[in-house]
Amino acid sequence: MTTICVDAMGGDRPSEVVLEGIAQALAADVELEVLVAGNSEVVEPFCAQHERARALLTTEVIGMEEHPADAVRSKKDSSIVRGCAAVRAGEADGFFSAGSTGAIFAAATLGIGRIRGIKRPCIASSVPGTSGRRTVFCDMGANADVRPEMIVQFARMGRAYSRVTLGVDDPKVALLSNGSEETKGSEAVVELHGVLAEAAASEGWFVGNAEGTDILAGNFDVIVTDGFTGNVAVKTLEGTSKFIMGELKKAVNASPKAALGSLLLKSSLKEIAAGLSGDAYGGAMLLGVKSPVIIGHGATSAEAVKNATLVCASAVRGELVNKIALDVAGA
Amino acid sequence: MTTICVDAMGGDRPSEVVLEGIAQALAADVELEVLVAGNSEVVEPFCAQHERARALLTTEVIGMEEHPADAVRSKKDSSIVRGCAAVRAGEADGFFSAGSTGAIFAAATLGIGRIRGIKRPCIASSVPGTSGRRTVFCDMGANADVRPEMIVQFARMGRAYSRVTLGVDDPKVALLSNGSEETKGSEAVVELHGVLAEAAASEGWFVGNAEGTDILAGNFDVIVTDGFTGNVAVKTLEGTSKFIMGELKKAVNASPKAALGSLLLKSSLKEIAAGLSGDAYGGAMLLGVKSPVIIGHGATSAEAVKNATLVCASAVRGELVNKIALDVAGA
Repeated sequence: MTTICVDAMGGDRPSEVVLEGIAQALAADVELEVLVAGNSEVVEPFCAQHERARALLTTEVIGMEEHPADAVRSKKDSSIVRGCAAVRAGEADGFFSAGSTGAIFAAATLGIGRIRGIKRPCIASSVPGTSGRRTVFCDMGANADVRPEMIVQFARMGRAYSRVTLGVDDPKVALLSNGSEETKGSEAVVELHGVLAEAAASEGWFVGNAEGTDILAGNFDVIVTDGFTGNVAVKTLEGTSKFIMGELKKAVNASPKAALGSLLLKSSLKEIAAGLSGDAYGGAMLLGVKSPVIIGHGATSAEAVKNATLVCASAVRGELVNKIALDVAGA
Repeated sequence: MTTICVDAMGGDRPSEVVLEGIAQALAADVELEVLVAGNSEVVEPFCAQHERARALLTTEVIGMEEHPADAVRSKKDSSIVRGCAAVRAGEADGFFSAGSTGAIFAAATLGIGRIRGIKRPCIASSVPGTSGRRTVFCDMGANADVRPEMIVQFARMGRAYSRVTLGVDDPKVALLSNGSEETKGSEAVVELHGVLAEAAASEGWFVGNAEGTDILAGNFDVIVTDGFTGNVAVKTLEGTSKFIMGELKKAVNASPKAALGSLLLKSSLKEIAAGLSGDAYGGAMLLGVKSPVIIGHGATSAEAVKNATLVCASAVRGELVNKIALDVAGA
């Protein structure tokens, strides 16, 4: 049995959406047990009805807009803090929440703890690519400033993530920059390029710079960047997808011909938007802590919760944390 | 008469595309004269047939992949270098090229010269937004590292550009960051936030941080950032648009229903892609040099060349350069 703790209170959607996702995950994986964290009125009726669901009763909820570190410090009985504590105590093997990214990051770093040798955890996700290959992208926002030794660890963690979740044998890593030549970049990024080239010299996994156009092209296994640039890139991607879908909706309202076209393309458009939202993989993975932690979209869906829970369980079974620990120790 | 020098050799497309765009611009604006820079076999037949077209005969071409500064130094008789020289000499009031961004930047900065007081020119473009409002975005890639005094000038130049090309009375400026709170950002960006807030304190045009999702939302008149982040954001936007259009094409190939839907949506999809490519405004404007300079996409179209030439002429007539000079002098 693999036990994943799922936060029933996290995100902007009602708890029913999360519970529905948990039910789907339990149905899909008979080796899965879920520790459901949340208020008793939400959690208890659900656990009474589902065999492999156990309740972790909590009384507080950390809101999406609260200051992460303050909230984690003051709300000791919140579903996020208690969920991470349950993982640390061995009551669960991994944690999933669609709550505040900052709060989950803080609670997991403090509560579950970093893997020995890891300077700072980072946030990674795999995005689809035109070529058909998925690309692991990190850091998506946890560390606005990175020191050179951190980017090398992000690269190694991204490689481990690519191996375990995508099955890539020897993932190649590129550094996000403003041009493909190695001389391109801000002063800081040119320095990171040198540090990555040196770290990977004998192992051959660093292949140079990637550009913004590469993120969804499927040209690289892993693209690393600092959390500031990563956050801007991911939110630009999200904003562009929203813009295009919004403009299509406007076109539909303006013309019956476009309306019919859109109706016929509906499932394709939905699929593309879902692929970009990361729902197929349930969210972003926090890499560098001692157990797999997945951070979902605030605006999550039952499907995303199901996938996140299953991906979290498969990261446990694939020994993602051990692989990261070995990679970092071997460095 | 307003005279714009247009580079007939720039870009990845054949010169005929550029010439067709010039012809359309001349037809659309009877107060426009075009100085057509390029090889004699390209330029002379065209100028013989068009009344307000004059030839600027050159013998060299700077390729898209050449090192910008080296190429500008060594190819003195290239269409880009000679075009900028013609502007400096007063033979034209503005310059448009769809050639190498770096080469145009270098040739214009050296050949036309910076406006007095401007530390570094920047590249700006206006992008569409879901709300219907266009947002001026700069720096799109000219300066990978920015010092605090540069970001204030970028903001002032972006405001002048918004006033002249979009007619916004008192444009508000936001700083691109990884969160809306003023404490969000890398250390460097938090510092830029403070500098912008101070510079705008008595004038009230700085409204705080924007995020990647704001770029195409139409939430701000101007969004400023360093050229590294700006380049990554614009290329991510471009890559996301390409990805979505590519996935739609795949869907079309997989199902006759989707194929019909796509056919019915064709003009809407084309319009959205064109809006995002900047073709409606012809390209990006180089702000901070003594005459309006527009940099087009390498993969330009006749429509984009036409629009760029007309926008360049309207920037001349709207006295964009004087407005920037006054704004910077007044600071």
